[in-house]
Amino acid sequence: MEALLTELRAAVGADAVLTDADVTSAYQRDMMPLAPSGSPLAVVLPVSTEQVQAVVRACAAFRTPIVPRGAGSGLSGAANAIDGCVVLVTTKMNAIVEVDADNRLAVVEPGVVNLDLRGAVEKHGLFYPPDPSSYDWCTIGGNLSTNAGGLCCVKYGVTTDSVLGLEVVLADGSLLKTGRRTVKGVAGYDLTKLFVGSEGTLGVITRATLALRPLPQAPSTLVATFDRTADAGAAVARVVREGVVPSLMEIMDRTSIEAVERYLNTDLNAGAALLICQSDAGGEAARRELAVIEQVCVDSGAALTYATDDLGEGRDLLTARRAVLTALEVYGAWLTDDVCVPRTKIAELIAGCERISAEVGLRIAVVGHAGDGNMHPTIVYDASSVDELERARTAFDLILGLGLALGGTVSGEHGIGRIKREWLATEIGPVGLRVHREIKQALDPENLFNPGSMFAR
Amino acid sequence: MEALLTELRAAVGADAVLTDADVTSAYQRDMMPLAPSGSPLAVVLPVSTEQVQAVVRACAAFRTPIVPRGAGSGLSGAANAIDGCVVLVTTKMNAIVEVDADNRLAVVEPGVVNLDLRGAVEKHGLFYPPDPSSYDWCTIGGNLSTNAGGLCCVKYGVTTDSVLGLEVVLADGSLLKTGRRTVKGVAGYDLTKLFVGSEGTLGVITRATLALRPLPQAPSTLVATFDRTADAGAAVARVVREGVVPSLMEIMDRTSIEAVERYLNTDLNAGAALLICQSDAGGEAARRELAVIEQVCVDSGAALTYATDDLGEGRDLLTARRAVLTALEVYGAWLTDDVCVPRTKIAELIAGCERISAEVGLRIAVVGHAGDGNMHPTIVYDASSVDELERARTAFDLILGLGLALGGTVSGEHGIGRIKREWLATEIGPVGLRVHREIKQALDPENLFNPGSMFAR
Repeated sequence: MEALLTELRAAVGADAVLTDADVTSAYQRDMMPLAPSGSPLAVVLPVSTEQVQAVVRACAAFRTPIVPRGAGSGLSGAANAIDGCVVLVTTKMNAIVEVDADNRLAVVEPGVVNLDLRGAVEKHGLFYPPDPSSYDWCTIGGNLSTNAGGLCCVKYGVTTDSVLGLEVVLADGSLLKTGRRTVKGVAGYDLTKLFVGSEGTLGVITRATLALRPLPQAPSTLVATFDRTADAGAAVARVVREGVVPSLMEIMDRTSIEAVERYLNTDLNAGAALLICQSDAGGEAARRELAVIEQVCVDSGAALTYATDDLGEGRDLLTARRAVLTALEVYGAWLTDDVCVPRTKIAELIAGCERISAEVGLRIAVVGHAGDGNMHPTIVYDASSVDELERARTAFDLILGLGLALGGTVSGEHGIGRIKREWLATEIGPVGLRVHREIKQALDPENLFNPGSMFAR
Repeated sequence: MEALLTELRAAVGADAVLTDADVTSAYQRDMMPLAPSGSPLAVVLPVSTEQVQAVVRACAAFRTPIVPRGAGSGLSGAANAIDGCVVLVTTKMNAIVEVDADNRLAVVEPGVVNLDLRGAVEKHGLFYPPDPSSYDWCTIGGNLSTNAGGLCCVKYGVTTDSVLGLEVVLADGSLLKTGRRTVKGVAGYDLTKLFVGSEGTLGVITRATLALRPLPQAPSTLVATFDRTADAGAAVARVVREGVVPSLMEIMDRTSIEAVERYLNTDLNAGAALLICQSDAGGEAARRELAVIEQVCVDSGAALTYATDDLGEGRDLLTARRAVLTALEVYGAWLTDDVCVPRTKIAELIAGCERISAEVGLRIAVVGHAGDGNMHPTIVYDASSVDELERARTAFDLILGLGLALGGTVSGEHGIGRIKREWLATEIGPVGLRVHREIKQALDPENLFNPGSMFAR
């Protein structure tokens, strides 16, 4: 493969082609511990669309698979290397090309870090909603590839809802431009939304035009605690029914609460479940929204509710939610799952996770985006124990089966990657799988991009 | 083709297969006067997914093209028959299968009329946003196929933003289920949004799961008149910049205003341009939003502004906007165009339409959804004059060219169909067109569905 390496060096410069295994191993996998990974032939770091095109053409000529990669913060193994592949890392393409405040849009390269974009547009009084938990280091390219979500989704949707257009390098090295710069547009197939969430299997996104929103008001915050999980679940369903759309609505179960209490050395007095809601509607509207939610919580049997307009206090109240994963590390390694169920089924999902926890003999903490039913049951295990790792994987799969049985999906926001291939097939069935293969075959006939991820050809 | 007709009669019953040319001619074309159409072999009206599958299999066996059709309210010729085809009409599949108020979703068959769905969910305090002007007779199936818009889009997006999942009969008669019933979900390619807006070229949608919203508050209304079009355009751009998102923001130019004044026999005192805005935020929030917009209009040079919380008065103020197309019929036939430009370019588009009007010697009235830049310049011509028809077509194309030159798209909400094929090719370029053909070839290798519409294979 020396001939390919020579071509890659010609394409991006020798310094941007990494082949030392000690170095390339850092690009071998993302943050999902259970997904398989292999050893790449090389890692390349292009700085322009033209360089990406040259890399793709070189790899195509040598029939060498390409695994596109952003920061590697993914949780499905979708950016994991396979043996002998070229990992194409987009982090050096990190220019915010344009912020058009008058048309509320931004044009960015894929390597821009989510938080950097948020900061850049905030200066213009604008807001880029998608806020995955890794927003301080994940890249927009990765967000686009996985159709990332976050805490904002209950009000503002997932990544695809903020994308107007893309530039994508296809398998033959040609450059596809999808979408538009206008708010609306229905000319042709919606290729933009086909590529968003395709997890690097159809091409390499080299530029994106993103829709921005007006910067919302500073959030008001409400917390409510419940002695019974079912009551918290009922409260979420009733909030939906009342027609209130909070800008954030998170839930923590007893195991999460206990872990955070131990980690922060505090008593949350939270009982079986804690709900945290925010409204960014501002002023009277925010007070009205939170008052409705508070009344629903009380009517549903909340043990305690507390609301505040104070920004710092609201941030403190969110600290508990944000600390869950770190707090769980006290017990061991964690493996976070990702299912989305109808909002009426949240309590059933939590109860089911308690049963699964007992069945496999591992602690499972359930945290999640209650407002949209997207839950992250997180399994704690001893990484040094093969047996516990196996039981963690068993629990992981049992939770996915439970999510499907409750009318849900096996991925709310993390994607399929190399960890849920069989579950995708189960969820979408043989016709769905066939259509996936037909589209993949049509756009990437040589199976160049991320082969074996998401589904097997 | 008697053998095919026999199979079709077996599939849907003899009464549901129409072959009398006097009858089938009613299903031959949609509402776009300039698009070509042909004579169908038959029109079939299935009542179930199974019947659709049987029709598709029969047509596939006889290599007879299928043109799917809803109510025929489209404005691009996408539902127009071609010679010898089978027109598959979905209007008899009109069941609202389910309204799940607790999860804010509805499951419907494609023949449900938009207005009927709106009414059915309103009883549950819920709202289905997409509101094309033909909402009192167009069907959800047609809305899905064209990714229809409406007045709501400035705040609530187009049809695709309200779709969670679909059932689609594919070219081999198999049934594909896409999407989910949950708010979020990223399992696999976003096939749902690929089929929405595909204008019947990839399959027949037989069921849809639609996301609903809480019913908004009764709208407050503001009108503003301007002596100069450029000032109205500047006001729109500044509203966007101020971060206000009205629930409706429409613009009428001088020609539209004059037509409506003549039709309603009233004096609107509206000068060169009229803006109509609504806020459905309710109470103090609505008053605050409209106050910001009113101030922006005044600062931009509005001659007159008037705001009201009164529902009936608001409806009366909207009457002028809704009357434009009917009012134009006083002058002759009309041909409505559909371009979407960046919101900062609205005044330039209107000025350009004035130039085109002078150039072709036909009246052009510009109305549109100012809040999202989606404009409908409407050309008035004498339908009995071949020369005027030709000049209307010239104007139609000049407007599309102008829209593209201003950084816009050749369709904001009406679609491509049989009237803008060449313009789609111009907008998306050869690589985009190739990808369209590859996807069509992958999903419909025999070119069974709506061949020649949207693009040529």
